[in-house]
Amino acid sequence: MRNIAIIVSYDGAGYCGWQVQPNGVTVAEKINDAILSVTGKRSKLYGSGRTDSGVHAYAQVANFHTDFRAPAEKIVPALNAYLPSDIRVLRAYDVDDEFNARFDAVSKTYEYIIVNDRVLSPFLVNRAYMVKYDLDEEKMQQAADVLTGVHDFTAFMAAGSYVTNAVRDLSELTVRREGNILRITASANGFLYNMVRILTGTLIYAGAGKLDTDSVREILESKRRENGAPTVPPDGLYLKKVYYREKYSHVV
Amino acid sequence: MRNIAIIVSYDGAGYCGWQVQPNGVTVAEKINDAILSVTGKRSKLYGSGRTDSGVHAYAQVANFHTDFRAPAEKIVPALNAYLPSDIRVLRAYDVDDEFNARFDAVSKTYEYIIVNDRVLSPFLVNRAYMVKYDLDEEKMQQAADVLTGVHDFTAFMAAGSYVTNAVRDLSELTVRREGNILRITASANGFLYNMVRILTGTLIYAGAGKLDTDSVREILESKRRENGAPTVPPDGLYLKKVYYREKYSHVV
Repeated sequence: MRNIAIIVSYDGAGYCGWQVQPNGVTVAEKINDAILSVTGKRSKLYGSGRTDSGVHAYAQVANFHTDFRAPAEKIVPALNAYLPSDIRVLRAYDVDDEFNARFDAVSKTYEYIIVNDRVLSPFLVNRAYMVKYDLDEEKMQQAADVLTGVHDFTAFMAAGSYVTNAVRDLSELTVRREGNILRITASANGFLYNMVRILTGTLIYAGAGKLDTDSVREILESKRRENGAPTVPPDGLYLKKVYYREKYSHVV
Repeated sequence: MRNIAIIVSYDGAGYCGWQVQPNGVTVAEKINDAILSVTGKRSKLYGSGRTDSGVHAYAQVANFHTDFRAPAEKIVPALNAYLPSDIRVLRAYDVDDEFNARFDAVSKTYEYIIVNDRVLSPFLVNRAYMVKYDLDEEKMQQAADVLTGVHDFTAFMAAGSYVTNAVRDLSELTVRREGNILRITASANGFLYNMVRILTGTLIYAGAGKLDTDSVREILESKRRENGAPTVPPDGLYLKKVYYREKYSHVV
């Protein structure tokens, strides 16, 4: 059996997230079905991590063991022929038998897109979050700088999550404005449940002057979710890149 | 009665074009219904021109006469409240009684988006045209330069169109590459039926080496549609901007 890693992009608007579940259509389920159609056999699909309902991916990574015989890149058009157009396999690579898209990931980058305007473009419906009041991107970046680094992010994890250790290395949290679009980029060695959406909600509060850097630091140090800003919707969230250790650095 | 001009953006994928017609839902019909809901009266809506089924607009311009009493900009959120999210009124302006979005337009700019790649991003489904073979954007620009200027564009008009004078001033026809995306920008004092889509088809043939500049010049001079390249799909076409004469230059 070979082990093939695939890079997948999807518009999450029409799906109940990545992970197969009893109610609702998921991205992994669609890919599982396509693998069955192409190879004639069901394979277990390992994703780098779950994305929630409505969350998008520029480059999710997954792997599966298969008897597929042609060169790995040939599975790209084969799978796409069976996938809906809002899920696309971009690339495929042979990886050694041990590779696991989840456990070998060393870090991930997410992007969150905010439209800071009074009207949401028809081309960004379900793909961005609109904030009508003025956001000051410099204040947002100042708040982001407080959060960057190695911290216990319990205050930025969905209430009710069961994680024994909420310490993560948030190596990058940047805010960039291009006209009425704000792009928040977050990179870490791991993300807690809803973490990017809570970080984004916090930066929006900072940008609106509802939280200053001291308040953001207090929320972080409180380790209590109830002290923080609201979780923003999934619409603006994109899994941008998954990084693997040196050995698997060709999986991009 | 006031005369109000509105700037409208729409994702044309779900519509049978701009113009009201017996079969299929159109953009103008949705706007007509929204005007009725807001003002309580039906108004005649004048668009700057028709866009075909599946064609998009960043900034279509239309006008209508109405008894609406609040400042013009107040009609923007009012109409949007009744419109589907894939049609958005961006701005609204008072214009004098004589203004007509169609007859006062002096020029228009369209954009056509080509994805020059083997896989179409999920985020560009229905919003771009994918060309899998390599396109040379320099050859495309050379062909575009042949077509720029004042010419009889009969060879770039859908067969069966009834137009007595096909002379148009194509003031701009440019090809710009950003990675795997090619953007064709076309500006003219008027466009014939399917003209941008036929021009784009021609530039694609030039970029693929199927037509050289001499052949393109021959097609133009032949004034015969059947000598030219195929019409590309509507998916990649966007009405980008409508320009008005000095008097109405605030309508943007």
